[in-house]
Amino acid sequence: MKFFMPTKLYQESDCVARHSAEIAALGSRALIVTGRHSAKANGAYADVCQALDRAKIAHVLFDEVEQNPSIETVMKARDFGVENGVDFVIGIGGGSPLDAAKAIALMIKHQDQDRSYLYQKGADSSTLPIVEVPTTCGTGSEVTPVSVLTIHAEKTKGSIPHKIFADYALIDGKYLKSAPASVLHNTAIDALAHLWEALINIDADDYTHMCVAEGLRVWKRSKAVLLGERQATDEDFANLMNASSLAGMSIAQVGTTVPHGLSYPVTYNQHMPHGKAVGYFQAGYLAEADAADREEALTLAGFDSVDDYQNFYEALCGSDKLADADLEYAVDVLAGKPDKLKKVPYTCDREVLRRIAFYTK
Amino acid sequence: MKFFMPTKLYQESDCVARHSAEIAALGSRALIVTGRHSAKANGAYADVCQALDRAKIAHVLFDEVEQNPSIETVMKARDFGVENGVDFVIGIGGGSPLDAAKAIALMIKHQDQDRSYLYQKGADSSTLPIVEVPTTCGTGSEVTPVSVLTIHAEKTKGSIPHKIFADYALIDGKYLKSAPASVLHNTAIDALAHLWEALINIDADDYTHMCVAEGLRVWKRSKAVLLGERQATDEDFANLMNASSLAGMSIAQVGTTVPHGLSYPVTYNQHMPHGKAVGYFQAGYLAEADAADREEALTLAGFDSVDDYQNFYEALCGSDKLADADLEYAVDVLAGKPDKLKKVPYTCDREVLRRIAFYTK
Ligand SMILES: [Fe+2]
Ligand SMILES: [Fe+2]
Repeated sequence: MKFFMPTKLYQESDCVARHSAEIAALGSRALIVTGRHSAKANGAYADVCQALDRAKIAHVLFDEVEQNPSIETVMKARDFGVENGVDFVIGIGGGSPLDAAKAIALMIKHQDQDRSYLYQKGADSSTLPIVEVPTTCGTGSEVTPVSVLTIHAEKTKGSIPHKIFADYALIDGKYLKSAPASVLHNTAIDALAHLWEALINIDADDYTHMCVAEGLRVWKRSKAVLLGERQATDEDFANLMNASSLAGMSIAQVGTTVPHGLSYPVTYNQHMPHGKAVGYFQAGYLAEADAADREEALTLAGFDSVDDYQNFYEALCGSDKLADADLEYAVDVLAGKPDKLKKVPYTCDREVLRRIAFYTK
Repeated sequence: MKFFMPTKLYQESDCVARHSAEIAALGSRALIVTGRHSAKANGAYADVCQALDRAKIAHVLFDEVEQNPSIETVMKARDFGVENGVDFVIGIGGGSPLDAAKAIALMIKHQDQDRSYLYQKGADSSTLPIVEVPTTCGTGSEVTPVSVLTIHAEKTKGSIPHKIFADYALIDGKYLKSAPASVLHNTAIDALAHLWEALINIDADDYTHMCVAEGLRVWKRSKAVLLGERQATDEDFANLMNASSLAGMSIAQVGTTVPHGLSYPVTYNQHMPHGKAVGYFQAGYLAEADAADREEALTLAGFDSVDDYQNFYEALCGSDKLADADLEYAVDVLAGKPDKLKKVPYTCDREVLRRIAFYTK
């Protein structure tokens, strides 16, 4: 068994302002990494600027991170950071900017290296100091060592082999208030997927169980809100954020498995949002699992059955089905990745993979 | 809310041997810190020596840490480490050597400072790299930032204000095999106390709950073994160790409260073992708590009632009672420590403190 999650996590309202001194102690010039719009719309960018300004820390903004960030974007941000002499990195946003921020902090630290360094196994993974400020409730990237980038040459996404933990995760539910319902829905499903794939995982142990059980306990508090049965309160937003971080701590220990693996080609080719894509395959993943694992996963999340989950998923993400050819392609891609298949605690051959992929059709 | 526990934790059989490369990477000359006998008797010292020898890392042994280590001992070990030019510290044993190892690693790093540095608030807390190898199942020191030293001048024990996390916690149940039953009993009660005092704590949040709920889930697996109802298996020893570490992670977040506070003068004056002393005050602490908190604490640990716990405690630690004068003295000492009292989630004035102290009389 093992446990490692060295990021200093704070979750509270006005979290960025409250911890401005700790941010300021990380360096003298920050590179802020965001997507194009949401970090400005939800107030997180303004909060970070104010915290840095108050501490008289210079900052420059790179706001060009796209959904499913590419290696090209990381390298562009790296060049921008180097030109500006930054000495720490602050990621703000959903999984894309947070993952990109880690890769950028790595590449600025190793600025004599070219892009191949990103995927170089066994290389030095040290980075500039990193602060992550999540503004969606799914990625968990603020507490995981994972950075998933899009590899256009392979028409898919893939984690870089460097394990990079942020120094600080500053988590504030208020940034969810301006998020569209679809973002809340997709990212809350992503968090659930992280919790379930960490629980039904060959490497799951008591420490994984610790994160998963608490994550599901917190996650299920918001089900009625996600279903639109009641208005979200500040506490709900805080719970959604916490569930996402606890889910991130879970996959930080053991990684994700088959549903995430199946989702990557689907996201790349069909442009399906990440959470919707990983949620698509959960019912099949649960259906194939050992009864005891399935029971525990469902019970901890407050579902009666696999169908109960599937109905919840469709209420949030819609009931459209992927085309057979796309599902076959996803199965083909994942069947060639034994590392991901080995993480499943039951025999997962090509036939089982197909049953998982086609379960809801 | 917050979560921080940066120690890299491994728990498995032959843990020290398996991670010898990671230990060796910490420096070139190790100071091994132990008590007088048990680290040799249980094989942990031999395992550490073998791991270091294989990696050609020099090591020197300081084996003079007494129960409830004193500042004097820390300073003696510091001088010994400085003379020998060590650059990292490995603590092996129960809470005393593990706590001492942190303080020693601090004082070797700050070797120009005198003993007052140990209790200097706001000073630099950086240390030499630290590895902790627990051989009892109570302290949790391998994953806490706490170092409790005995202050002879004040006739009590007190945590140093420096927050010091080990770099590695290497946890192996086999070191419990040779422990006397009394050590297993006292330390398992100490772990339970950590879990309960973290749960019934003004600072408890979802992250504390995460550690506590899992800790109690693991802790209660060994109750029958502790009661002597069945022989301990390797798995039981692993569970006892894990429960202790999970309990340590719990108090790493929020600290201990009244029972620990009451125990320190009792340990100092009556030489009662730490676990026995903190367990003595749990029934009273639970009895005074809010019903919902009490219920959750008891249920998660598998007890029906406060009496059920008290019977369990007496079966393990005996039913002898402390003298009224000693209890009054403990109340007096703790009544003068508002920081500790403020951690209790219910009003805890002198009268309540007395009721807790005298609950079982
Ligand atoms: Fe995900
Ligand atoms: Fe203790």
